[in-house]
Amino acid sequence: MRKLEDLQDLISQSVDKLTFPVHPADLYEPLSYILSIGGKRMRPALLLMACDLFGGDIDEALSPALAIEVFHNFTLMHDDIMDNAPLRRGRVTVHEKWNQNVAILSGDVMLIEGYKLMMKVPNHLLREILDIFNDTAVGVCEGQQIDMDFEQRDDVAISEYINMIRLKTAVVLGGALKIGALIGGAEGKDADLLCTFGENLGIAFQLQDDILDVYGDPEKFGKQVGGDIISNKKTYLLIKALELAKGNTAAELAHILANRDFINNDKVKAVTAIYNSLDIRQHADSEMQAYADKAFIALDAINLPEEHKQYLRDFADGLMVRDN
Amino acid sequence: MRKLEDLQDLISQSVDKLTFPVHPADLYEPLSYILSIGGKRMRPALLLMACDLFGGDIDEALSPALAIEVFHNFTLMHDDIMDNAPLRRGRVTVHEKWNQNVAILSGDVMLIEGYKLMMKVPNHLLREILDIFNDTAVGVCEGQQIDMDFEQRDDVAISEYINMIRLKTAVVLGGALKIGALIGGAEGKDADLLCTFGENLGIAFQLQDDILDVYGDPEKFGKQVGGDIISNKKTYLLIKALELAKGNTAAELAHILANRDFINNDKVKAVTAIYNSLDIRQHADSEMQAYADKAFIALDAINLPEEHKQYLRDFADGLMVRDN
Repeated sequence: MRKLEDLQDLISQSVDKLTFPVHPADLYEPLSYILSIGGKRMRPALLLMACDLFGGDIDEALSPALAIEVFHNFTLMHDDIMDNAPLRRGRVTVHEKWNQNVAILSGDVMLIEGYKLMMKVPNHLLREILDIFNDTAVGVCEGQQIDMDFEQRDDVAISEYINMIRLKTAVVLGGALKIGALIGGAEGKDADLLCTFGENLGIAFQLQDDILDVYGDPEKFGKQVGGDIISNKKTYLLIKALELAKGNTAAELAHILANRDFINNDKVKAVTAIYNSLDIRQHADSEMQAYADKAFIALDAINLPEEHKQYLRDFADGLMVRDN
Repeated sequence: MRKLEDLQDLISQSVDKLTFPVHPADLYEPLSYILSIGGKRMRPALLLMACDLFGGDIDEALSPALAIEVFHNFTLMHDDIMDNAPLRRGRVTVHEKWNQNVAILSGDVMLIEGYKLMMKVPNHLLREILDIFNDTAVGVCEGQQIDMDFEQRDDVAISEYINMIRLKTAVVLGGALKIGALIGGAEGKDADLLCTFGENLGIAFQLQDDILDVYGDPEKFGKQVGGDIISNKKTYLLIKALELAKGNTAAELAHILANRDFINNDKVKAVTAIYNSLDIRQHADSEMQAYADKAFIALDAINLPEEHKQYLRDFADGLMVRDN
C-alpha cells in the first residue's frame, strides 16, 4: 500500500504539470494561479488511495483525482467571491488579483475542465463515475447555499447543520473515495461502503474542526483560536449552545452575538465560558464520535483484506486526533 | 419533417415541465425563473431538428436539447452579472431579483444540471456527445472572455472578431446540430458537416445582427437602432471602420468614440455617416455572405435526401433575411 503522503506528493507534482490554453490569458491564468496556491491535496490523494486499496493501477486514477482537485479549486474561486475574501492561504484571491468577472468566468471554465479530466476513465465506468461526480458537485453547491442561508437565521437545528456540512464538505470525500474504488476494481457494494466511510469521517472531521476552533492548541491548530466565535459563525458549538441555553445564559449569549463592539478576546472568553457552562464540548465530542463510529462500522463491512482495513483505520485515527 | 416552430413549441412545453429540487430555494428557484423568461428556444429546437432530419426519434433527443437550453441560460445568468444588466427581456435579472451570490451559485448548479440532462443519451454516444458539449461550453467561456477583452482594446482585427463570435455564439449552434444528428443516427462525417453548416450560419447570423443594429427597420428588428453605436460596442462594422478610416475620418471617428457627452441620436447619425462613407455595409454584407456560402457548401456535402437538404436551406434562408 502506498503511503498517503506519497500520494499527496504525486498529486502535487501532477497538479504542477497541469496545463491550460494560453489564450485568452485572463480566462486560463487564474486556473493555474489558484492551483499553485497549494493545499494538502487530500481529496485527490484519497481517490488514489481508494484505487490502490482495491488493487488498481493508480496511474489510471490520476486524471479523475486531478478532476476532484480542479473541481475543489473551482468551488474555492467562486466561494472567495461570495465570501468577499481578500486572501486564501496568504495569497491574494483571484477576484482581487484580477477582478470579479474574471473569477466568475474562470471558475466556470474550471468546472468544465474538471468534467474533462473526470471523463478520462474507461468507457464501462464513465456513466457511473460522472453520476457520482454530478451528485458530489450538486451537493457542494447545495451545502454552500444552505451555509449562506444559515447566516440569516437564528433557528438552525443540529440536524440541519449536520446535513449542511455533509453536503458542503463530506460528500466530496465520499465521492472521491467511491470513484477511486470503482477505478480500482471494487464491487459496487464495497465502493458504496467506502463512500459511507468517507462521508461520515468527513462529518466527524468537520465537527472536530469546530471543536478545535475553540479548544485547540493554537500553535498546533495553525489558526486563530476563536475565529468562529469572533465571526458569529454558526458552528455545531454555537448552534448547540443556542439550543441548550435558557434564561440568563440565553440572554447573555444573544447579547454577545448582537453586540458588534466587543473586543475580540473578550468575546472569545465570554462565549467559551458559556460553552463550558453548557458542556458544549462534551456534546460536540460525542456527536463527532458518533459519526466516526458510523465510519468505522461501514469500514468493517468492506470486503478487503484486514491489513488494508487497518490502513484505513490508521488513516482515520490520524485524521481525528489531528493537532489537538 | 417537423416544422421548426413545432419543435420550438415542444421545447417550450418541456422547459415548463422541468423541475428542480425545492430546497434550498435560493439555489434552485433562479433556475426555473430564468428559464421562464423565455426566448425563441432556437438552440434546442435545432438539436431536435437535426435528429429528425436523420430519421431519429426526437423523444430520445429531448433531454440533450433541454441540456443545451439549460446551459444557455446558465451563461445568461452569469453574463448578466458580468454585464451588470438590470433586465433581461424586460424581466429583472437574477442578481437583481435575488443577489449576486445567488446568481453565481445558481449558475454553477445550472451548469451541472446541464451535464445531468446531457447524459441522458445512449451509452454508445455518451462520451462523444459529452466531448462535444465540453468543447461547446469551453468555447462559450473563451468567447465571453475575448469579448470582454475587446472592451479594453482599440486594435481588434476582423479575424479576431470573427473568432470571438464563432466561440461565443456559433459553436453552440454547431454543437447542438451535431449532437442531434448523432442521436438521429448520422454518420460522424455527416454530423461534422452539419456542425460546420451550423457554425458558419451562426457567424453569418451574428454579422447580420451587427448590420441590422444600424441598418435594420426598427419596427421589424425590435431593438433600438444604433444601440451598438451608442455603447461603442466593437461590432464588425466598427472594427472594419476603425481599420479603413484614414486622416480626418479616422480622427472624427476617434473623437466620437471618446466623447461621452454626445446626444445618442447625433452619435448614431454621425457614426452611420462614417460607415456609409467607407462602404461598411457592403463589406459586412459580403463577409456575411461568405460565411453563409461556407454553410451552404457544407450542407451540400451532407449525405441526406435532397428534400431534407432543401428544408435546411429554407431554414437558413429564413434566418438570413430576418426582419431586414
